[in-house]
Amino acid sequence: MEYRLLGRSGLKVSVIGLGGWLTYGGHVEKQKTFDCMKAAFDAGVNFFDTAEAYAGGESEVVMGECIRKYGWARNELVISTKINWGGAFASQGHAQNSVGLSRKHIVEGLNASLGRLGLDYVDLVYAHRPDRLTPMEEIVRAFNHVIDQGKAFYWGTSEWSAEEIADAWRVADRLGLIGPVMEQPQYNLLVRDRVEKEYYNLYAKHGLGLTTFSPLKMGILSGKYNDFKIPEGSRLASSSDPFSKALREKFNTDEEMKNQIATTKNLETVAKELGITLSQLAIAWIIKNPNISSVITGASKPEQVLENVEAVKHADKLTPEVMEKIEKIVENKPQLEARRFG
Amino acid sequence: MEYRLLGRSGLKVSVIGLGGWLTYGGHVEKQKTFDCMKAAFDAGVNFFDTAEAYAGGESEVVMGECIRKYGWARNELVISTKINWGGAFASQGHAQNSVGLSRKHIVEGLNASLGRLGLDYVDLVYAHRPDRLTPMEEIVRAFNHVIDQGKAFYWGTSEWSAEEIADAWRVADRLGLIGPVMEQPQYNLLVRDRVEKEYYNLYAKHGLGLTTFSPLKMGILSGKYNDFKIPEGSRLASSSDPFSKALREKFNTDEEMKNQIATTKNLETVAKELGITLSQLAIAWIIKNPNISSVITGASKPEQVLENVEAVKHADKLTPEVMEKIEKIVENKPQLEARRFG
Amino acid sequence: MEYRLLGRSGLKVSVIGLGGWLTYGGHVEKQKTFDCMKAAFDAGVNFFDTAEAYAGGESEVVMGECIRKYGWARNELVISTKINWGGAFASQGHAQNSVGLSRKHIVEGLNASLGRLGLDYVDLVYAHRPDRLTPMEEIVRAFNHVIDQGKAFYWGTSEWSAEEIADAWRVADRLGLIGPVMEQPQYNLLVRDRVEKEYYNLYAKHGLGLTTFSPLKMGILSGKYNDFKIPEGSRLASSSDPFSKALREKFNTDEEMKNQIATTKNLETVAKELGITLSQLAIAWIIKNPNISSVITGASKPEQVLENVEAVKHADKLTPEVMEKIEKIVENKPQLEARRFG
Amino acid sequence: MEYRLLGRSGLKVSVIGLGGWLTYGGHVEKQKTFDCMKAAFDAGVNFFDTAEAYAGGESEVVMGECIRKYGWARNELVISTKINWGGAFASQGHAQNSVGLSRKHIVEGLNASLGRLGLDYVDLVYAHRPDRLTPMEEIVRAFNHVIDQGKAFYWGTSEWSAEEIADAWRVADRLGLIGPVMEQPQYNLLVRDRVEKEYYNLYAKHGLGLTTFSPLKMGILSGKYNDFKIPEGSRLASSSDPFSKALREKFNTDEEMKNQIATTKNLETVAKELGITLSQLAIAWIIKNPNISSVITGASKPEQVLENVEAVKHADKLTPEVMEKIEKIVENKPQLEARRFG
Repeated sequence: MEYRLLGRSGLKVSVIGLGGWLTYGGHVEKQKTFDCMKAAFDAGVNFFDTAEAYAGGESEVVMGECIRKYGWARNELVISTKINWGGAFASQGHAQNSVGLSRKHIVEGLNASLGRLGLDYVDLVYAHRPDRLTPMEEIVRAFNHVIDQGKAFYWGTSEWSAEEIADAWRVADRLGLIGPVMEQPQYNLLVRDRVEKEYYNLYAKHGLGLTTFSPLKMGILSGKYNDFKIPEGSRLASSSDPFSKALREKFNTDEEMKNQIATTKNLETVAKELGITLSQLAIAWIIKNPNISSVITGASKPEQVLENVEAVKHADKLTPEVMEKIEKIVENKPQLEARRFG
Repeated sequence: MEYRLLGRSGLKVSVIGLGGWLTYGGHVEKQKTFDCMKAAFDAGVNFFDTAEAYAGGESEVVMGECIRKYGWARNELVISTKINWGGAFASQGHAQNSVGLSRKHIVEGLNASLGRLGLDYVDLVYAHRPDRLTPMEEIVRAFNHVIDQGKAFYWGTSEWSAEEIADAWRVADRLGLIGPVMEQPQYNLLVRDRVEKEYYNLYAKHGLGLTTFSPLKMGILSGKYNDFKIPEGSRLASSSDPFSKALREKFNTDEEMKNQIATTKNLETVAKELGITLSQLAIAWIIKNPNISSVITGASKPEQVLENVEAVKHADKLTPEVMEKIEKIVENKPQLEARRFG
Repeated sequence: MEYRLLGRSGLKVSVIGLGGWLTYGGHVEKQKTFDCMKAAFDAGVNFFDTAEAYAGGESEVVMGECIRKYGWARNELVISTKINWGGAFASQGHAQNSVGLSRKHIVEGLNASLGRLGLDYVDLVYAHRPDRLTPMEEIVRAFNHVIDQGKAFYWGTSEWSAEEIADAWRVADRLGLIGPVMEQPQYNLLVRDRVEKEYYNLYAKHGLGLTTFSPLKMGILSGKYNDFKIPEGSRLASSSDPFSKALREKFNTDEEMKNQIATTKNLETVAKELGITLSQLAIAWIIKNPNISSVITGASKPEQVLENVEAVKHADKLTPEVMEKIEKIVENKPQLEARRFG
Repeated sequence: MEYRLLGRSGLKVSVIGLGGWLTYGGHVEKQKTFDCMKAAFDAGVNFFDTAEAYAGGESEVVMGECIRKYGWARNELVISTKINWGGAFASQGHAQNSVGLSRKHIVEGLNASLGRLGLDYVDLVYAHRPDRLTPMEEIVRAFNHVIDQGKAFYWGTSEWSAEEIADAWRVADRLGLIGPVMEQPQYNLLVRDRVEKEYYNLYAKHGLGLTTFSPLKMGILSGKYNDFKIPEGSRLASSSDPFSKALREKFNTDEEMKNQIATTKNLETVAKELGITLSQLAIAWIIKNPNISSVITGASKPEQVLENVEAVKHADKLTPEVMEKIEKIVENKPQLEARRFG
């Protein structure tokens, strides 16, 4: 396993992380989750990512159980959670303050997460999406408060705009507080603009580290939809969660998704030439970006974990020539503007 | 129920709050208090306001019991208390430091309040009136201290002058500390100057949020004194508390109060035209002011709670034309001075 | 009892305080101590002063027992202790860090004091004399640390020079920390320079409050040595503590002490004219100084406590004419220099 | 015993300290360790130094046992530990964050050390070597965090460059935090540059205090290798630890070591003239440097402890003439550059 510094911090994370989105605590049975986490840990993964919003908190519960089950030492793990939606995606009735990034919810939300995880602290706590109703100063102060209380070591953001991240640093600098160390954006061969263009200046200026999610773009880059059909028996075919439903609908109608599958088919040729799977190509390609500290992967079977981890070894196969070939297939390299005028 | 941000903070409070002034823990029996709080909670109210001074601390005791009785989740509630008179309204003998806003009383007073409430923290802690004997720096530091200790999320003021609030912010800014987020003034159709004129600049400059008390001006705006008599069997007729006594005396002699009752009678016509009660008109009129985050209402019966909460639905009936009509009746719209000279 | 603000703080202290120097926990039997403290409390005294150095810590032990014995509420008391000599007056061997104002001793010393007192916090913690070996920044930070930890509400100094106090404020201001609120100097009719001259600018500039000790100048101003003899059976006649020994030796040889006794005899005439005791005159004279927040008195009998407390009522008898008469007797009014040159 | 202030702090350390490098908890049996520590304590030593890395944490365990065994009062001891390698010298697999100076490892490492020591706090915590992968701001903040949490009184560095120490102060000053108070470098008659030249400006500028290690240069300055052989039965002859192995290899081949032994033989003449042992000469020579607060000595037998402690008494024998004679033998006095150009 390769380990990288999380941005300009002293923390080291495995370049492959394991995330609990939709899966852990949700529709995958608990033992399968344990198996995936154990496979990952044994393969050298130290970074496990969850959120208060995943499976209504169940993802945290199962992750905590797994850590105790295998007796992993706390200092050998980097555990993260994210705060913004505590058990409620829409802000309704008395759940008003169970969402968002008010001081109240950051403190109460993290306390509840730690209770579900059975931990005294997480290593990383993220603001799960921006909250434009709460002033930046309140957000920055509240994350510093939980760090001062020993409930987290670092705080960061997820899917914030570059301007919001820079503003958080501006507030932190003014008050002598700690700014956001890391961001968790979507990043993969099909979605690149934010990481490669919007955040461009933040890496050097604020030492921003990235832990990215959706490396396979909801499975598309694994090639499993390459014959333009939803595989029978797959999660997507049967799941009733709103994300899966929306994806199913998109499947037949959405022109963009058809293009993405077509692109994926072309990438398959490259993967075959290198003797690796499409998923491995997709993950290895992300690892090649030195601004990425960890690629958060999902998995419902230990074999998937191992396939993903293998990608680290294959990263060297993505020579400049191969990278060039990939660029020609995906045709989505963001163009940086050297100057702005008008 | 409508929920509003508390000034420029990320906290959301129900636009109708329930307060424990004189009533809860005092002359109303405990079960009635529970019924009122439950009616409010079930109607969507999340904001419950008390103070160390209310009924000598009994208001906090009963509020705490009610929360445990119904098992309400802590994150679904916004609980506030106020510090300035801990069991003693006049500063006498050994009670010297049980009043005021010294660091000693803010810390000891809040600890005692939390003990009575049976809570680890309140959401909001107010300075219950200014204390001009204690330096502003000591007050600002002490409220920040209890926030740092996790005993409150936000601090604010009650019936401070605009200059005092601005001075608190000046001190907080100089020291990099948190300033007062909210103020709790009296505000109703008969008392408007402070909220509409004195505080005018504070809303945009410091993001001040308001939770207002006395929406019915001690019952006058409910219309119950409209025949210029104290109703038999009412609290006012029998209560021996100093406020009720003073009010009883005022009743027959005070010219201002007679005018207020006359005004109220005129407002009754407007309420009837809209098909709502006088109380609802009075509360809906406050809600129309976007600088008000929550109107703290009192109640001794669940029906009153429901009547008050209904006001939220009727706020739309107060069209610009109706508002204009009301202005002509109350004739007390504060005039802002655009410039000052000499 | 009269209560005064402690300098420019919001804390109120009784203008008469009771101190535990030499006596409490030391040679006076425990029950007598309890009686004195109870007499003081019942007379309205809220301020009780001790130090880690008094009777090797026993003074704190007995004071704590007394508080529990009578069940006095914590918020009705202002308890102070002083840190600098934890069980050792000279810094020897392993006791190196049991003296002084290092961060180690301020924290460990105060923890030990709280343990002996049986309290969670004191109201006031003093630096008992300056420590010129420890940098001012370390001292200021350490006292702020114990305040942040909730172990004291205010910190101050005892017998520091004006320059040292001003330097502490300079450091505190630079770091945004809390400076020393009060000083505890010797002050009486025979020793005036520090309070009336050296500290002159500190009252307005830093809001310095004073709690003074030795109001009777080790008993001289009580008139008990007026026939130039040590009374038989008195503490001074028999005590083996180093202070008493030094005083005994001084008694017959020291020219200054003879002059002080002669002055005291002249003051006796004034006291008789006013119909009060010499001790009461001496204490009332201190109270007349508005910069003094509290006069810390000593006592080995409840009657002494009452005699001292009575002085408060007699302060009005010290009219401008009487004050002028006293000035002529003591002839020690410090002269302020309006300008300094050369 | 002589006690010195630790740099520009108020803490006093015995000029002879006892360290647990390699020995305590390692190959020396536990009882011998207890005997050495007791001999040192009884001779006035108050400063005991260990590190999370010594004997894989066992050094801390045994030191903690010894403190409890003899019931030494916490305030009579100055205990230090060092953080950088928690059970792992090389950063491998899941031990990634068990080394270095990330916020995670400083907090987790110190907590683990306190657990092994059985103490609530250490007096001193050192950054055991620099960590150039972690930003200085993170390091400075994390050490201040553990000080704020009451887990240490002072923080310092070990074998950092002058530039790194100055940079830590620059960051601390900017953020209003506490900078490193002390450094722990190697310092002895054979290795002088860092202490006498590189750190030259830090003593006055930042008040840097030194606790030095290796006073006998791994035993060379004790004279035990003076016949150019490894004594049979010695630790060096048999030990399998990597340091001993490397030293054994060096022994026959390394030109520098041969020179050092030759120098040592010449120093022996001086020691004999003064009637003291070579070790005592070496330690006394360090004590003569006023920038050294404490010389950390090692020992595997109580007699060695006593021999080392005796050096304090002999320091006066190192008159200017003797010091001059020593300079001529060692011929390694660092030359300070008054100005730099080009």
